[in-house]
Amino acid sequence: MSRARIYMDWNATAPLLDEARAAILSALDCPGNPSSVHAEGRRARQMVEAARRSVASLCGTLPAHVTFTSGATEAANQVLTPDFRMGRTPLAIGRLYVSAVEHPAVMAGGRFSPDRITVLPVNGDGVIDLGQLDEALQAHDATSGLPMVAVMLANNESGVIQPVAEVAGSVRRAGGVLVVDAVQAAGRLALSIEALGADFLILSAHKLGGPKGVGALVSRGEMLMPAPLMRGGGQEKGHRSGTENPAGVAGFGAAADVATRDLEPRMAQVTALRDRLESGMRAAVPGLVIHGAAAARIGNTSLVTIPGLKSETLQIALDLEGIAVSSGSACASGKVGRSPVLDAMGVKGEEGALRLSLGPQTNEDEVERVVAAIGRIAARKREAGVAA
Amino acid sequence: MSRARIYMDWNATAPLLDEARAAILSALDCPGNPSSVHAEGRRARQMVEAARRSVASLCGTLPAHVTFTSGATEAANQVLTPDFRMGRTPLAIGRLYVSAVEHPAVMAGGRFSPDRITVLPVNGDGVIDLGQLDEALQAHDATSGLPMVAVMLANNESGVIQPVAEVAGSVRRAGGVLVVDAVQAAGRLALSIEALGADFLILSAHKLGGPKGVGALVSRGEMLMPAPLMRGGGQEKGHRSGTENPAGVAGFGAAADVATRDLEPRMAQVTALRDRLESGMRAAVPGLVIHGAAAARIGNTSLVTIPGLKSETLQIALDLEGIAVSSGSACASGKVGRSPVLDAMGVKGEEGALRLSLGPQTNEDEVERVVAAIGRIAARKREAGVAA
Repeated sequence: MSRARIYMDWNATAPLLDEARAAILSALDCPGNPSSVHAEGRRARQMVEAARRSVASLCGTLPAHVTFTSGATEAANQVLTPDFRMGRTPLAIGRLYVSAVEHPAVMAGGRFSPDRITVLPVNGDGVIDLGQLDEALQAHDATSGLPMVAVMLANNESGVIQPVAEVAGSVRRAGGVLVVDAVQAAGRLALSIEALGADFLILSAHKLGGPKGVGALVSRGEMLMPAPLMRGGGQEKGHRSGTENPAGVAGFGAAADVATRDLEPRMAQVTALRDRLESGMRAAVPGLVIHGAAAARIGNTSLVTIPGLKSETLQIALDLEGIAVSSGSACASGKVGRSPVLDAMGVKGEEGALRLSLGPQTNEDEVERVVAAIGRIAARKREAGVAA
Repeated sequence: MSRARIYMDWNATAPLLDEARAAILSALDCPGNPSSVHAEGRRARQMVEAARRSVASLCGTLPAHVTFTSGATEAANQVLTPDFRMGRTPLAIGRLYVSAVEHPAVMAGGRFSPDRITVLPVNGDGVIDLGQLDEALQAHDATSGLPMVAVMLANNESGVIQPVAEVAGSVRRAGGVLVVDAVQAAGRLALSIEALGADFLILSAHKLGGPKGVGALVSRGEMLMPAPLMRGGGQEKGHRSGTENPAGVAGFGAAADVATRDLEPRMAQVTALRDRLESGMRAAVPGLVIHGAAAARIGNTSLVTIPGLKSETLQIALDLEGIAVSSGSACASGKVGRSPVLDAMGVKGEEGALRLSLGPQTNEDEVERVVAAIGRIAARKREAGVAA
């Protein structure tokens, strides 16, 4: 393959930003443990705290509200628990309500037992049904504790944006706690925990150009916090024990700084390319379906089905042509199965869906090449007359 | 300060090895998610699996027995749980028995409630009392489940080595599960999970020259495993969900390779320097006490008390002279308090203890300079006639 490969799987993981790479290298060369009081330790501590300020800025909140974790999955497992505290007073959460299109890290329900999790339906565009949310919250049995609602801001497969502010209104009226998975939204939508009305945000560094293995749980305040998932040395004010990861966190901070800057022009450019990709695919492939197209979506994502062409087959054919895309979400090693997100949206058929997700480094030439490749593969299938 | 600083706090964290740095950089430049099936994802997957082989070699076991985590604290919280499985069959652990000198990550007891944790005493050298362990296990109430014993191989503060093979005999006779915190032993003692008779080992990358934010739970087999601490996408065969950290893991693998090579000559050199440090300090400081000196210790660690001189005061004075050491373990931000390890060893007095921990890059000149500095500071205190 003489031409460079095309990476259109930014929702699985974004290529590392130069700024993040530089911050990581600088932290790697600092030998200290951030909990050590000597000069080496203090320097590592400064790097962690600078990154905390950057991630706080990204979410429009204070550094004291950012707890670093090893990723979004850890943050989800930390916050999704019946066992909360308001200050030092225990506070019980009785039931977890999640939308039917949540990421597996949220859908698994963290420390809630399965019988204490309610899944709320979405409509054909993948948007949560606010009426059914209200009904469920009105029927909530408060004797076991408060209700907790977990809704993602932007879906990892479809890019569909949930009406989080409206969800927050319902949760507030029910006296509940709102957790928002902002992993795919960060760096693509303006993010303010206050404006969203969320109590907690879940973030991942590697989806916005930082390193893998780092994330954060961002809280609206400092009083309402989940019982720690990891106990030990008492780092992160006791909320998350374990030696901090200064290199990972510094890379996260640098990526957060980039994500905060020039959001609108950057996403306008990405969205224009995504729209061009979609109009190109529509023109090249008869009957192509774009999922969630009628809903508000983040500008970098396109989830499509080509009638009669399995998305796994298409994904492999594109990979052989040097194009990295995904069929469904990349969550477990080699797992290829039916997407629960499509099921929740009521999508029928054997084809599944192909996810194309773009980033700021995506260019016009790449979009044209992907459109041409998909058109070619789809035509070949039509000519063969075989639904693979 | 014109002279280079001296780093003698390797037990808090080891400086990054060149080999680990190169492996990290190589992985950072690979854009894939290890769970993605395209070429980029498969390359990231290969890096993770190569590192798994390296860490398995370090422990004398198979790659399938290595579960990567975000560090030793996570591994401890994962394995210290009443909720186990033998294959798919639930298996209850009724009580956790820990030595009184365990690291806070183990002492906190993971997912065991405090009333189901028994702390076992150590002698004046910090070695676990095997008789009391046997008594406790014989008195174990099996109706609530099996006993679990957690004992560290080498202590983080004193370097004292526990008689793990003997402990394993007791645990085996009681039909229990043995967890060994090998964080400070890895790279300093030959490590074989089989020879130790342990069911699980806890490892941390950054203590052996890898990056911070990565560790592993190593199991003797694949059948007996704890309920996952983190649920979600099902990575690490379902034992630990969350996107893998290929850069961190690759750095861990490289550090494990180095740790496995030339262990004996490397540790002979480090031990000779540590012994020279100790004889130098004894000669320079009247009444200096070396804790655990009568017990077997790993060769890089020295825990000392100077009568009348608080270890915090000494630590700060050394830091100002360009020497990084610690007073107690570095576990939580800026926390300076009485060491529970000293209490468990029956050490009296207000002075606490200073930990000096060396590594393969420590040289003779550094040892001489540290001896001279400690002698000078101790003499100044004696002349001032004040117990600071």
